[in-house]
Amino acid sequence: MNSYQARTDDMFFVLSRVLDGPAQLQALSPYAEVDAALMQQVLDEAGKFVAEVVAPLSRDGDEIGASWKDGVVTTPPGFRQAYQAFWQAGWPALSASPAHGGQGLPSVLEAMLYEMLSAANHGWTMAPGLLHGAYECIRHHGSDALRERYLEKLATGEWLATMCLTEAHAGSDLGLVRTRAEPLPDGRYALSGTKIFISGGEHDLSDNIVHLVLARLPDAPPGPKGLSLFVVPKFEPDGTRSAVVCERIEEKMGLHGSPTCVLRFDAAAASLVGAPGKGLNAMFVMMNAARLHVALQGIGLLDAAWQKADAYARERRQMRAPGAGKGATTPDPIAEHPAIRRILDSQRAWVDAGRVLAYRTAIELDRIAHAQGQAQTQAQRWCALVTPIMKAVFTHQAFHGGSDCLQVFGGHGYVREWGIEQIVRDARVAMIYEGTNEIQAIDLLVRKVLVDGGQDMLALLDGLQADVPDAADTQAQTRARIDTLRGLTTGIVQAAPGDPALPYRVADDYLRACALVLLDWAWHRIDAGLDASAPGTGARWQAPARALRQWVLPEFEMRAGIIGRQCEAVTG
Amino acid sequence: MNSYQARTDDMFFVLSRVLDGPAQLQALSPYAEVDAALMQQVLDEAGKFVAEVVAPLSRDGDEIGASWKDGVVTTPPGFRQAYQAFWQAGWPALSASPAHGGQGLPSVLEAMLYEMLSAANHGWTMAPGLLHGAYECIRHHGSDALRERYLEKLATGEWLATMCLTEAHAGSDLGLVRTRAEPLPDGRYALSGTKIFISGGEHDLSDNIVHLVLARLPDAPPGPKGLSLFVVPKFEPDGTRSAVVCERIEEKMGLHGSPTCVLRFDAAAASLVGAPGKGLNAMFVMMNAARLHVALQGIGLLDAAWQKADAYARERRQMRAPGAGKGATTPDPIAEHPAIRRILDSQRAWVDAGRVLAYRTAIELDRIAHAQGQAQTQAQRWCALVTPIMKAVFTHQAFHGGSDCLQVFGGHGYVREWGIEQIVRDARVAMIYEGTNEIQAIDLLVRKVLVDGGQDMLALLDGLQADVPDAADTQAQTRARIDTLRGLTTGIVQAAPGDPALPYRVADDYLRACALVLLDWAWHRIDAGLDASAPGTGARWQAPARALRQWVLPEFEMRAGIIGRQCEAVTG
Repeated sequence: MNSYQARTDDMFFVLSRVLDGPAQLQALSPYAEVDAALMQQVLDEAGKFVAEVVAPLSRDGDEIGASWKDGVVTTPPGFRQAYQAFWQAGWPALSASPAHGGQGLPSVLEAMLYEMLSAANHGWTMAPGLLHGAYECIRHHGSDALRERYLEKLATGEWLATMCLTEAHAGSDLGLVRTRAEPLPDGRYALSGTKIFISGGEHDLSDNIVHLVLARLPDAPPGPKGLSLFVVPKFEPDGTRSAVVCERIEEKMGLHGSPTCVLRFDAAAASLVGAPGKGLNAMFVMMNAARLHVALQGIGLLDAAWQKADAYARERRQMRAPGAGKGATTPDPIAEHPAIRRILDSQRAWVDAGRVLAYRTAIELDRIAHAQGQAQTQAQRWCALVTPIMKAVFTHQAFHGGSDCLQVFGGHGYVREWGIEQIVRDARVAMIYEGTNEIQAIDLLVRKVLVDGGQDMLALLDGLQADVPDAADTQAQTRARIDTLRGLTTGIVQAAPGDPALPYRVADDYLRACALVLLDWAWHRIDAGLDASAPGTGARWQAPARALRQWVLPEFEMRAGIIGRQCEAVTG
Repeated sequence: MNSYQARTDDMFFVLSRVLDGPAQLQALSPYAEVDAALMQQVLDEAGKFVAEVVAPLSRDGDEIGASWKDGVVTTPPGFRQAYQAFWQAGWPALSASPAHGGQGLPSVLEAMLYEMLSAANHGWTMAPGLLHGAYECIRHHGSDALRERYLEKLATGEWLATMCLTEAHAGSDLGLVRTRAEPLPDGRYALSGTKIFISGGEHDLSDNIVHLVLARLPDAPPGPKGLSLFVVPKFEPDGTRSAVVCERIEEKMGLHGSPTCVLRFDAAAASLVGAPGKGLNAMFVMMNAARLHVALQGIGLLDAAWQKADAYARERRQMRAPGAGKGATTPDPIAEHPAIRRILDSQRAWVDAGRVLAYRTAIELDRIAHAQGQAQTQAQRWCALVTPIMKAVFTHQAFHGGSDCLQVFGGHGYVREWGIEQIVRDARVAMIYEGTNEIQAIDLLVRKVLVDGGQDMLALLDGLQADVPDAADTQAQTRARIDTLRGLTTGIVQAAPGDPALPYRVADDYLRACALVLLDWAWHRIDAGLDASAPGTGARWQAPARALRQWVLPEFEMRAGIIGRQCEAVTG
């Protein structure tokens, strides 16, 4: 029914007032001319495009879905027209380099655009979702010939792209990939194997599709070090169709607008991207940006769910709210019932904090690219540590908080009518792809924290604590939580040698504990940024802040307790 | 792929060894002859019927679903044949009185049957799910003529039944029901109005359908006290079709096998059931049994999800498990990875404890019917307090724990292949119907606990604590949790007068805290019952017990903290 409207005022408030984004970005040379007014204008235009062109296609995207016949995939009604309008208006090129036809704007604007797109139509947004990663991959690892051939097409979005990693027996463990690449006389390779779960592996949205494929050269060692990256276009420059066949598309829980393809490569002519055996490195270059985008899908979907539930709860009247006067007999809007209030305010606390954290991370990505010295080092630290946390908790929250929003509708939430159950079904996949949430937790604790004895994480926590002065009660509580998390970090570092499985047992709890500290920090930043320019009333910001402290943050102590007991059991 | 197999050995172990069910029930006169061997035989036969007849229809039930055309509803392939086989084999009559063609067996066997049916095929099971409630309703409130006409048909299940409560504007607040009943000259009433969300409101499974409908007499006061209960059959005894039209069926997130109908009553001839203005009382007579059945749906669905995830995790190999030897390079079954182990063991802890609590509740329902004096009073107390807890937490766990089981499959869980995503979609509705989980929490705290100043709850807690001797560490922890819950109960009772909204703010936390104490208690009962007759190895029972204590129970302290702070804010 009511479809998503981007809250660009809330979004811009976080970017400008809470994060001081325009000034921070103008300090980086490529963005010296990008002022607040330009940023706001881009966001407003993006909000309009999303609401007018993309959001209205979401229901058909789910109900009609993509279909497959004899290797040909047809996307839902309107999807191709919307995509053509999207790339021709220059949206995919937002943060690509002007050297390749891009607009050279900061990554954070692209991040905010993808938040809106995902909120409006997750299925459609899957198509351009991998473009920027493919662009960066070829930009950094491709030969001059490949760059010449692909960069502008990918920067502008005229051609779409895929990432072909997974095989039936190789999911989280890409070291098991079996697809083989045999050298051809012309310097290319004949690529053979079957890839599954390929989003947008075949479709009618764009005139060409650029597949990035992980495969093994004949002399490659087993395991992840034997993987190389290749590029295979759907159509060669002379119009020849490559030997890539879409064998079927999957029937899924949701995301029906996005064709999830089984792709069979039958000795398809492929070009090597980067060095042999360095396939995973080439892919990992874009990992942080891709994971941040998935986190933004979560934030967008949760906001969309919240918007629907909020609107419904204001209209729907059932029973008197507790504490209401005895006289009247008219039922109250369910928004006034405490159980509903709690759901709505808690989800809003997640969304607002999510924006602070995600936009900050996007700014740090630009700092990695364009700053030097300590600023760059700190940006790398932030992105390495915060990105897996964001990916895991915001995809989790989109599904679980989205389900809470569904609950606001009662039985009306379980039927299609309001579109809320679609959000819950669509959101579920994001907990799995781009590295399952369990993999994110291991990435954080084992690969990022333990690897340097916790030093980077402790430095990050110092930075967070420095932002929270010890004045109000809530600030003291936050500082204490950061102290606790510091202790847990050191505790795991010390206990891990005694039991190599320990970090894996507590990784999920550790990631949640870190996330809650980040959420807590983000709301102090919001508190500090609040002024007369903030959209909405005081209650607009006080209600989620209160919900955060009453209902959301207590999980921190629970997680801390679990981790502490696990460490004690090892160290005695 | 792999379809559900009832674990009747686990189920019977809980009933016989953990709960001493056969002896407890044989002490009630109607069941004096029902010994353990008979119970086990009934369960084994039920398990076979469910596996052979009902489970295989689940996938088509979801994919083809029920369909509507011109008021006629067609159920999915095989559904009618399976239902005819079901009632003709006597399954609906299991616990109905022999006076009405029933088999007079204890309610717990019916409960266990419905756990299996729901696990195997939630959509199909919706059809007979309301039979027993309708039977009890007419048995206790119907006139002799109505009893004569309907009881045997409902007891045997030859005819199916519906509950027509909800209207578009009246969901949780039934006081807003508008359907009207005008007296007819023959003593019946002309019933007019539109009911929504009527499970099985129209279908082809049985030759007749008996609708129980809430409506208002012309002189009825507004609100819930103006509601009366009526019965309207689809077909009158002379074969005339009643003026009830199925206007459409809903498109839902799941449960596609069960038609959710909009029913329009056009001056349909209706008979009054019970006294005018006592419609809700007549419905509430069966509330505890109905809510227990919904809790059993949750337990069954969670078990089905667990079975699928457990089987997949033993076969699927990805990466070495932490702590595995360095030498081998073969990837390990993901069941050996701690994140997966945690999911599997935690869900099993919920399922096992769920059975202890649900079967115990079913035994108490029989005590209410057939015991006297203190035993009966205690049984009433148990059912009043424990039933809303069970309904809320096990439907919650089926969805959230089911989603965790989906996660075990990675991307393979998001596609239809293994049927796990269907379980998650199907399970979601049970958090809403039969009183939303938020309503259960209010029912528990406001209507059951506060109403007598907490006395019944404190007595229940005394009983739980008496079952847990103060010997082992885990026992001391459990006793301490019970003490804490006692203090929270008293705290809310004392603080509530200062803020009438307080109980509504903490109702969800209170219900969760109670549930965790019950779970904790249930596992002590399991520990006490373990002997050589327990199915499986020691690890079969130790792993979920450990998971419960490590990962599940820490939520108790979090909930206690939230409640305590809310009470303090009121009492100062």
